[in-house]
Amino acid sequence: MSNVNIKPLADRVLIEPAVAESKTASGIIIPDTAKEKPLKGIVVAVGSGKKDEPMTVKVGDSVLYGKYSSTEISVDGKDYLIMKESEIYAIL
Amino acid sequence: MSNVNIKPLADRVLIEPAVAESKTASGIIIPDTAKEKPLKGIVVAVGSGKKDEPMTVKVGDSVLYGKYSSTEISVDGKDYLIMKESEIYAIL
Amino acid sequence: MSNVNIKPLADRVLIEPAVAESKTASGIIIPDTAKEKPLKGIVVAVGSGKKDEPMTVKVGDSVLYGKYSSTEISVDGKDYLIMKESEIYAIL
Amino acid sequence: MSNVNIKPLADRVLIEPAVAESKTASGIIIPDTAKEKPLKGIVVAVGSGKKDEPMTVKVGDSVLYGKYSSTEISVDGKDYLIMKESEIYAIL
Amino acid sequence: MSNVNIKPLADRVLIEPAVAESKTASGIIIPDTAKEKPLKGIVVAVGSGKKDEPMTVKVGDSVLYGKYSSTEISVDGKDYLIMKESEIYAIL
Amino acid sequence: MSNVNIKPLADRVLIEPAVAESKTASGIIIPDTAKEKPLKGIVVAVGSGKKDEPMTVKVGDSVLYGKYSSTEISVDGKDYLIMKESEIYAIL
Amino acid sequence: MSNVNIKPLADRVLIEPAVAESKTASGIIIPDTAKEKPLKGIVVAVGSGKKDEPMTVKVGDSVLYGKYSSTEISVDGKDYLIMKESEIYAIL
Repeated sequence: MSNVNIKPLADRVLIEPAVAESKTASGIIIPDTAKEKPLKGIVVAVGSGKKDEPMTVKVGDSVLYGKYSSTEISVDGKDYLIMKESEIYAIL
Repeated sequence: MSNVNIKPLADRVLIEPAVAESKTASGIIIPDTAKEKPLKGIVVAVGSGKKDEPMTVKVGDSVLYGKYSSTEISVDGKDYLIMKESEIYAIL
Repeated sequence: MSNVNIKPLADRVLIEPAVAESKTASGIIIPDTAKEKPLKGIVVAVGSGKKDEPMTVKVGDSVLYGKYSSTEISVDGKDYLIMKESEIYAIL
Repeated sequence: MSNVNIKPLADRVLIEPAVAESKTASGIIIPDTAKEKPLKGIVVAVGSGKKDEPMTVKVGDSVLYGKYSSTEISVDGKDYLIMKESEIYAIL
Repeated sequence: MSNVNIKPLADRVLIEPAVAESKTASGIIIPDTAKEKPLKGIVVAVGSGKKDEPMTVKVGDSVLYGKYSSTEISVDGKDYLIMKESEIYAIL
Repeated sequence: MSNVNIKPLADRVLIEPAVAESKTASGIIIPDTAKEKPLKGIVVAVGSGKKDEPMTVKVGDSVLYGKYSSTEISVDGKDYLIMKESEIYAIL
Repeated sequence: MSNVNIKPLADRVLIEPAVAESKTASGIIIPDTAKEKPLKGIVVAVGSGKKDEPMTVKVGDSVLYGKYSSTEISVDGKDYLIMKESEIYAIL
């Protein structure tokens, strides 16, 4: 997991996407044929939440997220994604 | 029912879809000609709910859900669906 | 009225649709030419309602409902419809 | 005014539409050329309202309502309309 | 100003539209070329408001309103408009 | 700044648009090539706000506002714009 | 960072966009191929927030923001962007 100096605003989360692989250490396989494939990554920075809605995910969590709801940014040559926590489906 | 190590976020539910069959043990038949066919499955993981909205379904519940509102994931070679509880129509 | 073992979630209602007929015992006639024809049925199962919104219809109520907002399911060879209570227009 | 045995749900109202006429007893004329012509009728049944929103119209009120937001039903051979109270413009 | 026996529901207002003129007594000119021309009229009846939202306009107020958000009705041969108060831009 | 006798309703504001110029006294230049050019004007009348939302701008404020969200009116031969305060970007 | 005399309204923020560069001092690289590229800039003025929603960013913060949700203005020959704080993804 990387250490980056970015503070997401509100309910946003910064994620380091996992390298695509057919089977992960914990046994999760991302199917090729799913109509909307969730992707896997590691949370590297978390916003402070919105009013009365604290964040659930923590830095270091391995998460599944939707394919189409994030924005790419690049820090020190590494690619990250920034998205709202509501786009994260589950913690592995 | 499978035992999986996934924690759905917020009001999401992880479901193991039932194998398609013409008549189930409890007598539920999914009609072929319905314009939007509900599908049947078993709840295998449940999120902690949204603020002031606790979850209703429990792990092990047999549920009917809509066909078009879930996302497929695969764990240890088995297919699951993740969806919001509001997409679940009924507990059998 | 049938006795079925299905628990609708939240504000959903399970309805046994009436057989189409030109004039019912209580004199209700469903017009052929209405642009959106309400349909008639019997409530066979009721959800527990949403937060702070208890349900109004009860099992056994004869109700009129919209044509396009329900989902068909089949239990023990009989057809039912599941819909939100807000799609029910009136109790007869 | 008819006496019907129908209980509209929530904020719905059952209306017996007036026979179209060029000038009513109270002098209301529905213009032919209006782009959206309000229609006139008598309230014959009223729902119990939504949470914290009691109903305003009463059985027997003569009302004007929009042309496109009601559903036709027929009881004992007479045509009625069912609509939400918010679709009623005014009490005459 | 006319005296009409119509009670608008909720936040609706009944307006007697002013005769089109190039310059009014108070000097308001409605421009010909405006992309959405506000129109002028006199309030002749006012609803009782929605929950916790009392009405601002009073019978007799001269108001400017949008062109496309009202419904025409006719009482005793005179044309009126019925609209929600939120469609009224200003009191002259 | 003009003195006009118009009372905007709710959260609306009446604005006297500035004459188009390439550079203002305070140095604000409206770029020609901006895809949505904000426009500048002076507030000449302010509504009393919506429930629990007092107004921020005052009569006499010089403001920037969006190009497409106002309605033109004309008083005593001068052109004004009426818009909701939320369409005002900033006070200069 | 510039010193400008503009007070954004409500939850709006005035931003001085950074000159496009391939690698910044802090190592942030904006990828060329991202489908929606976030842009970087410095906050130069901040609104007072909306009711019960104080602002998070401060004057001087370096921020990433979406490409399509801002309005260009120009003060003393320099280009600025005005946007809602919710369009800002993160503070660097």
